[in-house]
Amino acid sequence: MGGDHGPSVVVPSLTRAAERLAGRDVRFLLHGDGQRLEQGLKHIGAAAERCEVRHTDLVIAMDEKPAIAMRRGKGSSMWNAIQAVKDGEAHGAVSAGNTGGLMAISKLLLRMAAPGLERPAIVASWPTLKGYTAVLDVGANVQSDAAQLVEFAIMGDAFHQAVHGSTRPTIGLLNVGSEEMKGHEEVREAQKLLREGGFDLHYHGFVEGDDIAKGTVDVVVTDGFTGNIALKTAEGTARFISTLMKDALTANLLSKAGALLAMGSLKAMRNRIDPSAINGGPLLGLNGIVVKSHGGADAKGFANAIKVAYDLAASDYADRIAKNMAYLDRAIHTPAAEAAAEAV
Amino acid sequence: MGGDHGPSVVVPSLTRAAERLAGRDVRFLLHGDGQRLEQGLKHIGAAAERCEVRHTDLVIAMDEKPAIAMRRGKGSSMWNAIQAVKDGEAHGAVSAGNTGGLMAISKLLLRMAAPGLERPAIVASWPTLKGYTAVLDVGANVQSDAAQLVEFAIMGDAFHQAVHGSTRPTIGLLNVGSEEMKGHEEVREAQKLLREGGFDLHYHGFVEGDDIAKGTVDVVVTDGFTGNIALKTAEGTARFISTLMKDALTANLLSKAGALLAMGSLKAMRNRIDPSAINGGPLLGLNGIVVKSHGGADAKGFANAIKVAYDLAASDYADRIAKNMAYLDRAIHTPAAEAAAEAV
Repeated sequence: MGGDHGPSVVVPSLTRAAERLAGRDVRFLLHGDGQRLEQGLKHIGAAAERCEVRHTDLVIAMDEKPAIAMRRGKGSSMWNAIQAVKDGEAHGAVSAGNTGGLMAISKLLLRMAAPGLERPAIVASWPTLKGYTAVLDVGANVQSDAAQLVEFAIMGDAFHQAVHGSTRPTIGLLNVGSEEMKGHEEVREAQKLLREGGFDLHYHGFVEGDDIAKGTVDVVVTDGFTGNIALKTAEGTARFISTLMKDALTANLLSKAGALLAMGSLKAMRNRIDPSAINGGPLLGLNGIVVKSHGGADAKGFANAIKVAYDLAASDYADRIAKNMAYLDRAIHTPAAEAAAEAV
Repeated sequence: MGGDHGPSVVVPSLTRAAERLAGRDVRFLLHGDGQRLEQGLKHIGAAAERCEVRHTDLVIAMDEKPAIAMRRGKGSSMWNAIQAVKDGEAHGAVSAGNTGGLMAISKLLLRMAAPGLERPAIVASWPTLKGYTAVLDVGANVQSDAAQLVEFAIMGDAFHQAVHGSTRPTIGLLNVGSEEMKGHEEVREAQKLLREGGFDLHYHGFVEGDDIAKGTVDVVVTDGFTGNIALKTAEGTARFISTLMKDALTANLLSKAGALLAMGSLKAMRNRIDPSAINGGPLLGLNGIVVKSHGGADAKGFANAIKVAYDLAASDYADRIAKNMAYLDRAIHTPAAEAAAEAV
């Protein structure tokens, strides 16, 4: 029921999702207004056979405060979707609804599997010259200590394997330089942990802001404050350059004619940075799969978010995370680490 | 002597700088290899009359460690240029040399005027849809408390007035959201200080990453860690999109023909984000004006760095900073603030 468009986007997206997941036994539980959903299913052909509607009247509004969503949200479409994951009835939940509400209810029902995190982390799939780089956290945890940064590395690694199909993703820690002594204590300490913690991870070292778009590594790890600002700064820059380019290509008759000739190639370029191709960010660190779709996503974008949830559920994502989390637990509870912690 | 090109760029840049500063009684002291400099001056026409050469054999290498530059740098061209500022013989120093060395020697000779700063802050002039936004700190101070962030605001305000000609620049604090409770303690506390400290500043509130390129405010304040990553992420994004665009416009014969037709407009667009037009970042927070030029700058770029130094020296830049710094001193030394500090 969530997002800017609700069932008018979510239901048609199922045709596309079913096509992309053809041959795999995938089924959809649709939580929300039964009548509207049943009505929508009449128009999506064979995909409707994979769907089951779970009616509820209650919907969490897009502008509801997270605390209110949590207190009064029981029985809402969002709540029920997450409850189905908790009950083992669904392998994952996908929502385009209220982000804060989704986080709060997910955390309440599923609980955090990453003990260091205050709230679920969000990962962005960033288009680069080489493919996609996973950047996390891009928004939820504003201050991250070394152990949290390592948790992000562990989850980003599993995410990149499951969703972007890499076999051994390289991981970089975002910093202001590549030398050992650069940056603040948290990143230096995280690098030490990643190098010496015995993880099943391919740690590359420090990377800088311009390494993201270069695709220097597959996973870029940073705290939620820096990550959110980096992501929005990049979006702002991309929009700025697109505006300048559009201005340039409509400045006069000559340039308009030029744009017309180059149209095909320019469109192909646009597809490479098409936001709907990367829509769907899992809330990382929960005991269960919950994927957030952009509120304004179209059917193609929402289908992609469904694909992300499927890929996570169908892979060894959860096992990989659990294994590396156990190494982390050991690394930060060594006698040396305990002594250091006590000395503070 | 510094930068990738040394006197072969610096000396010819003086013609352009003299043109841009026509009618103003500006003179240049050139520190370095006397013979090379005198030789170069023969080719720059009338501008040579404004120049005086100060010979020295010693040059700080581009890859010298800052500590070594400081210990062994006495009498080098860089050292002498800064010494001339200290002695009141020059109103400002401009260098394309070793950044770390320039920072270290500047701090040693001129001392910090902003008591909270570990080292000088660096400001970037960011091209936006509305003009230029000053973003600081973009690299030097990796962890900034609230008082430091306010110092950045004070210096950014004076910089934007002096260099970009605004009369009352608006100032925003970079954060992950615009609501009062967003972000970590340092930014929330800095916002409180900026709102209640009685400064002669036009404080706007929190801004997000995408507000930079939108030009929402004239000055964006952030810690050196976040600022450096935001700047490099934006540079990386711009380069990524330019590469895609170049690929698109050379993909086939049709698009090549299109690019040819639109060439004029595309070039005009390029000029809007020409790095040499914004070259020259002052080291902020010193008792004296020192401007760092990009090491790879051409003569046009170096002339712009000279213009920045002139604008700072010719304006009430230093007075504005001193006035607001006094307010800051008062704001953080109120009885309430002292009590709070003692309670920690």
